[in-house]
Amino acid sequence: MKKIAILGSTGSIGTQTLDVVRAHPEAFQVEGIAAGTNVELVIQQANEFHPRIVSVGTKELAEQIRHQLPAGTQVYYGEQGLIEVAAGTEAHTVVTAVMGSMGLPSTLAAIEAGKTIGLANKETLVTAGHLVTERARQKGVQLLPIDSEHSALFQSLNGEPRERIAQLTLTASGGSFRDRTRAELHGVTVADALKHPNWSMGAKITIDSASMANKGLEVIEAHWLFDMPYDQISVLLHPESIIHSFVEFVDTSIIAQLGNPDMRVPIQYALTYPDRQSSPSSRLSLAQVGQLNFKEMDYERFPCLRMAFEAGRLGGTAPTVFNAANEVAVARFLKGEIAFLTIEDIIADALERHQTTANPELEVIQSVDQETRAQAMAFSEKV
Amino acid sequence: MKKIAILGSTGSIGTQTLDVVRAHPEAFQVEGIAAGTNVELVIQQANEFHPRIVSVGTKELAEQIRHQLPAGTQVYYGEQGLIEVAAGTEAHTVVTAVMGSMGLPSTLAAIEAGKTIGLANKETLVTAGHLVTERARQKGVQLLPIDSEHSALFQSLNGEPRERIAQLTLTASGGSFRDRTRAELHGVTVADALKHPNWSMGAKITIDSASMANKGLEVIEAHWLFDMPYDQISVLLHPESIIHSFVEFVDTSIIAQLGNPDMRVPIQYALTYPDRQSSPSSRLSLAQVGQLNFKEMDYERFPCLRMAFEAGRLGGTAPTVFNAANEVAVARFLKGEIAFLTIEDIIADALERHQTTANPELEVIQSVDQETRAQAMAFSEKV
Repeated sequence: MKKIAILGSTGSIGTQTLDVVRAHPEAFQVEGIAAGTNVELVIQQANEFHPRIVSVGTKELAEQIRHQLPAGTQVYYGEQGLIEVAAGTEAHTVVTAVMGSMGLPSTLAAIEAGKTIGLANKETLVTAGHLVTERARQKGVQLLPIDSEHSALFQSLNGEPRERIAQLTLTASGGSFRDRTRAELHGVTVADALKHPNWSMGAKITIDSASMANKGLEVIEAHWLFDMPYDQISVLLHPESIIHSFVEFVDTSIIAQLGNPDMRVPIQYALTYPDRQSSPSSRLSLAQVGQLNFKEMDYERFPCLRMAFEAGRLGGTAPTVFNAANEVAVARFLKGEIAFLTIEDIIADALERHQTTANPELEVIQSVDQETRAQAMAFSEKV
Repeated sequence: MKKIAILGSTGSIGTQTLDVVRAHPEAFQVEGIAAGTNVELVIQQANEFHPRIVSVGTKELAEQIRHQLPAGTQVYYGEQGLIEVAAGTEAHTVVTAVMGSMGLPSTLAAIEAGKTIGLANKETLVTAGHLVTERARQKGVQLLPIDSEHSALFQSLNGEPRERIAQLTLTASGGSFRDRTRAELHGVTVADALKHPNWSMGAKITIDSASMANKGLEVIEAHWLFDMPYDQISVLLHPESIIHSFVEFVDTSIIAQLGNPDMRVPIQYALTYPDRQSSPSSRLSLAQVGQLNFKEMDYERFPCLRMAFEAGRLGGTAPTVFNAANEVAVARFLKGEIAFLTIEDIIADALERHQTTANPELEVIQSVDQETRAQAMAFSEKV
């Protein structure tokens, strides 16, 4: 029986993590769950999985749910609540699936507490990869990727040392606008952008897929997770999302992980690692798929990915700027306040303005994050 | 410096093994080579790689080459010569690349001597899988596959235990006649059959690819190598031969090995295992390949594969019969004495006639082998 805690239990990764637990009631016990504002769902989850700790976004929400939880459930809220769920239980593995840069302090707290991390919050590594990987090394803590691409790389590597790696390749479906030219991106709607061809995911990441900013975040995440220079990380267009990513070794041999697009597979792998267990997911039939297609990435068509590589190579606070500007931009796009193509303008402006600080401490990262958000907001009002 | 010996040094696998050695002169030392009748090449190899032992097919050939070898080279011949090269040197790894069922005694001798086996002679496992795997287990000897498909499975597994495997899938290019219907196979010539679309290999295996008998031998080999029941082994048509084979795990995750078709990669992996080293092979660009295709295997179109599964499931001496009948048939086809479609008739007749003996000893296997050859020859004279 493996004890787990979930940061972001009501989101897309959180609910699918609980699907995995539901499929293996004998294997997992949920010690803690942390959510934001979806109290209806968190109450339902608490009554089904009986975690010892539940945390929600605010004090008011905590008061609101308190009497609808099983007797004895401890209720927390806010950032401290996240940290309680991350570090204050007997969980062996903590799934970090809160959105955006707010996942960082609780992930660090879980590492300090020696928890294995099921890493779904990519901003953690994007903004503070140097701190997170260093502390994980010091604590002997494993960072197990939950993103399908990084899980694919992790499974393909299967313990082979990094000096045998020639290249990591992340595949990219191309997102909801993959069949459009740049000219055809003018005036696209939020509803259009939310129609991802392969994966059912949250709104933010679906927009990030359409802009390829998501793949950019994944490149930076891969850099930290696998200790790989950016020259040895590439991105390949693969519309079917069947090959989830692959590793080329120095002997030219390529090992790839394949499957139907279903996040429950990488989630479950992080929870059962190094073991594997049966899955409710559907089996992949390549004969049925019939054909897999691949195309060189086009960095003119997808400038957000180009900028992510640039930010990654700059290092220091630059990836924080990329991420914060993108978060502001996507939030505004989702509210219908800016055009889709303005997302990249906002990121470009933020990166241009920024003077990179190398090896930033947590406080520096947080202040750059906030500054960037304010500036990006101001810039986006003007365009 | 790893010491190696090569059984079948002048064949396709043998020469490519020496290519690998040539590319890594600091890593390997050739202790022994055994060839058949290609004395010109074996003399050249001996003068380039300075093995301590050289063996050729007959006493006459041994006498013929003796004075053209470096001083001090020991010369052997025949079956005893093969066994000397297999077991009588300080080699750490023995590459077993002689053709057909004559590779069996020397492979067993190498196992008895505690050598790691780089297994390229598939008939060894096909005819005596139960003996070979049992003795390898007793001696703690590793059987490292050199066939591209089995190397792909081995690399994809990368040490994961068999209870995590749901299915092994061998890919098949379809061979030189893959675009022809059965009706269009009447009257095909030897020259047509030898034009393999993807792989440059010996004549026998190229014909076996066209008839799919080769994939049948590989299925039986996979059964023994990975201790997998036949229900968990499948074959998928994949014309590009880029995915060399793959493993599906119980969690529906598939791990595949990919690369350009180049036997030097699996050969080198068996020689450097568990390490990997740089390779002169060309790197695979999936963007350049553009498209991978897959199609359900058609057992009506390829009856040799269906018969191999049947022989495998029958077990005992049945795979020996399949293999011996096929060897006779292919030899006659290559001489232009029978039609291509007669190959399957000869196998079918041999399997029909045969009463399977379970768990046969080496002598029983050898006598069934010889009986089958005689009967297959007689049958093939009549058709």
